Formats: sequence, structure tokens, C-alpha cells
Amino acid sequence: MQLTRYTDYGIRILMYVAAQPQRETLFRIAEVTTVFDLSSNHVAKIIHHLGKLGYIQTIRGKSGGFKLAVKPAEINLGKLVGELEPSLAPVNCTEPYCRFTPACSLKGILAKAVAAYMEVLNQCTLADIVKNSDELMETLPDLSISVLELN
Amino acid sequence: MQLTRYTDYGIRILMYVAAQPQRETLFRIAEVTTVFDLSSNHVAKIIHHLGKLGYIQTIRGKSGGFKLAVKPAEINLGKLVGELEPSLAPVNCTEPYCRFTPACSLKGILAKAVAAYMEVLNQCTLADIVKNSDELMETLPDLSISVLELN
Repeated sequence: MQLTRYTDYGIRILMYVAAQPQRETLFRIAEVTTVFDLSSNHVAKIIHHLGKLGYIQTIRGKSGGFKLAVKPAEINLGKLVGELEPSLAPVNCTEPYCRFTPACSLKGILAKAVAAYMEVLNQCTLADIVKNSDELMETLPDLSISVLELN
Repeated sequence: MQLTRYTDYGIRILMYVAAQPQRETLFRIAEVTTVFDLSSNHVAKIIHHLGKLGYIQTIRGKSGGFKLAVKPAEINLGKLVGELEPSLAPVNCTEPYCRFTPACSLKGILAKAVAAYMEVLNQCTLADIVKNSDELMETLPDLSISVLELN
């Protein structure tokens, strides 16, 4: 019942970008992979997806990169998680097919539990989790500076 | 955020056993694997785990098998899920380590969401999800009979 790494990394990337509202230079995939120790292939896929979802704007070219396309307060965490998770189905009744499915009341209870989970996230935005942006950026001071200099 | 298959199968097995309170013969791994189309290795591991947790009693020998060790009303779904899931941590901050961890408020929000999820399950027992045991057993009539006959 843990969030998939894909969703987790997606939120981390958006937090990283949203925590630097004053920054004028574009963000780079290489920077994110270094900061969070993730594979560039993985990060590129997530950035592409976040772009398609309208959260990130990508600028191509030599001095290209990406930036937030909407305000952090407009990115609802519940909506974001729903978009990034492969499924919000509380349990997989189909692979392999569970014969109980037509009469099963477990899935209804689990669906209620997932709804309660999502209800908490629906009340939060990206802005809420980067309120302490100074503290967040302090967790990665030297690294981000050196990467920026390298670029 | 879906339940792992391990937990899902564990609950299915307990539902299968609890839905047959009148049955006098012991349950067999081969029967469960046939009914739910699961690997016997997988089922054996789960049965062993459910035994260690005190939910199932295993009887060895030629005419051995297993049966429920406690009443369905005494098996709390939240507790069971907590015992079967590999982790109730809402997100994995350690592999790879997320540098935001010391200042991260996302994990607090996700923990609140998981608590809301568990709160729903904590209000239910195995008895609640096998109330309609007749209907459940009707989803697998011929199969269970043929397996029982084979044994």
C-alpha cells in the first residue's frame, strides 16, 4: 500500500522545483538525478509525464531544461497521486482473477479505505509541502550548487 | 498504494476458510491453489505465516491440512493487513535515500493518509466480509467439490 517509486519520485521532483521559486535558471534532468541519486532514464520519463500532465514546462535546446508550469498551490496532491499511480484500485481482483469477485465485500471496504486515504491528500497542495522551502533546500546545499556550476 | 498480492492472497485464503464454518474436513493447500489459481509455493508460505500469526492451525500427516484457529469475528482486518504487508510506511524515504527527509512534510501528510486508510480497516473483521458466505461459496461451486473429491 506504499506509493510506487514512480509517484514518490514525481512528487520529490515537483517539491525540488517548487522549493526554488526565486530561481531564474531552468532545471535540468542531470541536476535532479544527482540531487536524489536517481537514474536519468527514470527521471526523464517522469519529467516527460509531468509535462504531459501540464505541471511542468520543458524548454528544448542547449540551454534548455524545465520549470514549473503552474503555481504550487494549484497542484493538488490527491489529483497528482491519482495521475502518477498506475492504479487507484485498492486490490487487484483480475490478475489472477479472484473467483470471489462477484460476491466480494472486501473490495468495497478497501475502496472505502482508499477513499479515506485520498481524502487526506485531496486537502493538500504542492504549496503546503514546500512551505518550509528554506529548510528543504538546506538539506541539499553543496550538491545543488556544484551541479549548477557544472552546467 | 495497492495492497501487495501477498496480503491480498492471505485475506482471500482466510475468507475461503471462514466462509465454510460448517465444514468438518481440513482445508488443503492444493485446494486453495486450485480455487484461486495461485502457485502452491506462494500459498504454502502464506499459510505458514498465517499459522505463525495464530490465525490458522496446521495439522500434519496424511490426512492433515489446516483450519481457522480463531473466530472470524476476532480477526481484525486492519491488524491483519498490518501484519501481512511488508511495510506500513507510506513512502520509502531510504532506498534510495531522499535528501529531503529531515525537513520533509510530505511524509507526515502521507502518514495521516495511511492512518485514515487503516482506520477504515480497523473497524472491520473477517466475519464482516464473509457475512454473505453462501454467495461467496456460490462463486466456486463445482471447483471446490471436484477438488475435495480428488483429495
